[in-house]
Amino acid sequence: MMLDQLLRPEIQELVQQGQVTLLREVLKDWDPAEVAALLEALEPEEDAVVFRVLPHELATRTFELLSSDKQQDLIDHLAKDQALLASLLNNLSPDDRTELLEELPGPVVQQLLRLLSPEERKVATTLLAYPPESIGRLMTPDFVQVRAEWTVAQALDHIRATGKDSETLNVVYVVDDKLRLIDDLRIRQLLLSPLETRIADLMDERFIALRPRDDQEKAVEAFRLYDRVALPVVDREDTMLGIVTVDDVLDVIEEEATEDIHKIGGSAALDEPYLTAPFFSLVKNRAGWLVLLFVGEMLTASAMAHFEAEIARAVVLALFVPLIISSGGNCGSQATTLIIRAMAIGEVGLKDWWKVMQREAMSGLLLGVLLGAIGALRIGVWEQIFHLYGPHWPMIALTIGISLVGVVLWGTLAGSMLPLALKKLGADPATASAPFVATLVDVTGIGIYFSVAALLLTGTLL
Amino acid sequence: MMLDQLLRPEIQELVQQGQVTLLREVLKDWDPAEVAALLEALEPEEDAVVFRVLPHELATRTFELLSSDKQQDLIDHLAKDQALLASLLNNLSPDDRTELLEELPGPVVQQLLRLLSPEERKVATTLLAYPPESIGRLMTPDFVQVRAEWTVAQALDHIRATGKDSETLNVVYVVDDKLRLIDDLRIRQLLLSPLETRIADLMDERFIALRPRDDQEKAVEAFRLYDRVALPVVDREDTMLGIVTVDDVLDVIEEEATEDIHKIGGSAALDEPYLTAPFFSLVKNRAGWLVLLFVGEMLTASAMAHFEAEIARAVVLALFVPLIISSGGNCGSQATTLIIRAMAIGEVGLKDWWKVMQREAMSGLLLGVLLGAIGALRIGVWEQIFHLYGPHWPMIALTIGISLVGVVLWGTLAGSMLPLALKKLGADPATASAPFVATLVDVTGIGIYFSVAALLLTGTLL
Repeated sequence: MMLDQLLRPEIQELVQQGQVTLLREVLKDWDPAEVAALLEALEPEEDAVVFRVLPHELATRTFELLSSDKQQDLIDHLAKDQALLASLLNNLSPDDRTELLEELPGPVVQQLLRLLSPEERKVATTLLAYPPESIGRLMTPDFVQVRAEWTVAQALDHIRATGKDSETLNVVYVVDDKLRLIDDLRIRQLLLSPLETRIADLMDERFIALRPRDDQEKAVEAFRLYDRVALPVVDREDTMLGIVTVDDVLDVIEEEATEDIHKIGGSAALDEPYLTAPFFSLVKNRAGWLVLLFVGEMLTASAMAHFEAEIARAVVLALFVPLIISSGGNCGSQATTLIIRAMAIGEVGLKDWWKVMQREAMSGLLLGVLLGAIGALRIGVWEQIFHLYGPHWPMIALTIGISLVGVVLWGTLAGSMLPLALKKLGADPATASAPFVATLVDVTGIGIYFSVAALLLTGTLL
Repeated sequence: MMLDQLLRPEIQELVQQGQVTLLREVLKDWDPAEVAALLEALEPEEDAVVFRVLPHELATRTFELLSSDKQQDLIDHLAKDQALLASLLNNLSPDDRTELLEELPGPVVQQLLRLLSPEERKVATTLLAYPPESIGRLMTPDFVQVRAEWTVAQALDHIRATGKDSETLNVVYVVDDKLRLIDDLRIRQLLLSPLETRIADLMDERFIALRPRDDQEKAVEAFRLYDRVALPVVDREDTMLGIVTVDDVLDVIEEEATEDIHKIGGSAALDEPYLTAPFFSLVKNRAGWLVLLFVGEMLTASAMAHFEAEIARAVVLALFVPLIISSGGNCGSQATTLIIRAMAIGEVGLKDWWKVMQREAMSGLLLGVLLGAIGALRIGVWEQIFHLYGPHWPMIALTIGISLVGVVLWGTLAGSMLPLALKKLGADPATASAPFVATLVDVTGIGIYFSVAALLLTGTLL
């Protein structure tokens, strides 16, 4: 007796009990032929569950061995028994689930997506286990496939017959008998060629394809680079799964810019439109960062306390604290937003860090000298007019000027390097939001300012 | 003798001298037939100049009366004599030029654009006087026009014969004999219909068209709303001028987001990629705003000087200045970026100001109470541990707490209302960049803080 017959009752029990992890453990080393025999023998409600937990390699090879009736049956049940599958899968911890749910074989995914209504398809992403923000979630199965050996006339007839539900007819996809993508053709190539031309003669076998598990940002990048209106999505074996159309990508671009802008402004990204977002989720999104920044800013009080004696001796020093730290903060915000955006649109990458550092060091120095000169000048002028700062005003002016150079230079460097550092650590660079840099620079700016003051004013004012 | 014969020498002289304003003055009340007769008689170098200065209405009606040889001739010369025309037009003041250069008749524009190479077309926008950032600058003349009375088979043959240079074949345009747009058809409609179907039977005569002088943001909005891959551009008479394709709009969306992010970060928008932008233009873009903000922040020194006596009496007050003003600044930046983005993607408009104000007043109050409580708590805890603040610490804690509520509420309101106010004044809301709000709130925050302190601490610390 074969393995599949021996163990069939046990396997049916595992299925009934929803023991999917154990089920996979049992089946993962079986021969595809044995699994195929098992599936052929199982009830339709059961085979879908068993098939779903098979490792990708095994599932693919098993599927090829099934009778075409069973194949169709399986796909129907995968589509219909979502509720059963979902309830089974929801009992797993998220980690287990991701590990368990490997990609289904490409032809199964394609069929599955076509069977589902657009609403069902959203639910099915659980079933297909494409992560949120992944290309798989954008994909539609409604596209036209043609074969290399057809003529243009045959292809156009095929389009006329089957293209009704296709999301776009602007691009058609050439696939082989295993549904593997071999080329994409713009409809213009078909429209501009004599009807008797072979599809194969139009092909250059060069195409850009997306992967369903890649981040949606990859799709954005590809659309920007290749000026297409649709791009194909394929699995590891190059089997066509679906397409992504440009209108969905427009929305992604906007959402990503919004997300970045919110983060730069120091909120968590808001998913809903401002006016319709529930009030408390709006406040919650903002409160988190604000509290964090506030706790960070508390260090300014500690830093100031550290120099309390100096302030008591020379109150005039306290007057310039806001001016100095905010200048550092402004320069830091500027540098941060420039670099975050340059990274978001692919102009700057990690490898450019040294170039960025050089540019920002020079910029920071120049801007610091500029602001420092204005600041020192301002003290001189005010002294002449209002006589506010006493006999030591030139040294005060010098202190302010030099502190500004230091704070601005430091703010600029910190602001430009932080997004790169976050990226390096695998975090989202936009989270180095401008207020965060400002907070960092506020605290350190106080230290820079009072250190310069101690150096220059000890013996006179201090 | 007709008017045109009488005045021909004078008109030729005006053309030679480049007196285009006068020329228009002379011609604007002529009958179209007279102008047509004049143009037929003029030299090819001259007729283009005369035609170009005619008011739109007159130009359109005159063009219809010209012989088809002369029409072709005129278009050729408009295309070739750009240098002559440009030099004439460059002598005008910008105001005069805009007034003088009304839209050319649609068929002339369409022909003209087709004759020019893509490089020449950029220059031609002067000739066509489409403002920068307008849809006219994005438009391409390479599209396919079909007629309502044709069959699908005829249309497909026409496409096969003439579509080679078309930017897209995904959409074709149905026009009448005066090149007026009457419908746009997606290529799928042609591909899915039997070949003998009449184009007229596919039409629903509903289409979205853009205007060449509208801002590119309008195009972005239309593409977002209507999920198209190309949209037609028509003039006042609905004559087809060109199309805008979605890939150009992708670029516009990105550029606009970049511009907004740069402005939010407190720079002038940078047109070039960060790494390749010339160093000094990079610094210049940033220095302008920084200096402005710095001059604004100088008011903090004045505000602090105003309270110098209080600080001297109670140095402890100075310690919390950075904490308080930066909290206001952070809340302001948050509110500003949220509102700027919501306005940019059309979620919030001027009419919503009262709703925004209510939401932000509530948010600001809640966030202020949250931060105020944390701040007061922090002082209490620190006092128990480090004994920093003396016997009056509860009043200090209360002062900090209440000041934070005030500053955060004010920062949130100022940050959310400023973009709306700027929009109302006709300025770009993104220019209410976060650092600007932060600066505003820094200065006023000092006033709020010391006023609360004076109120609560006079008689004890002050």
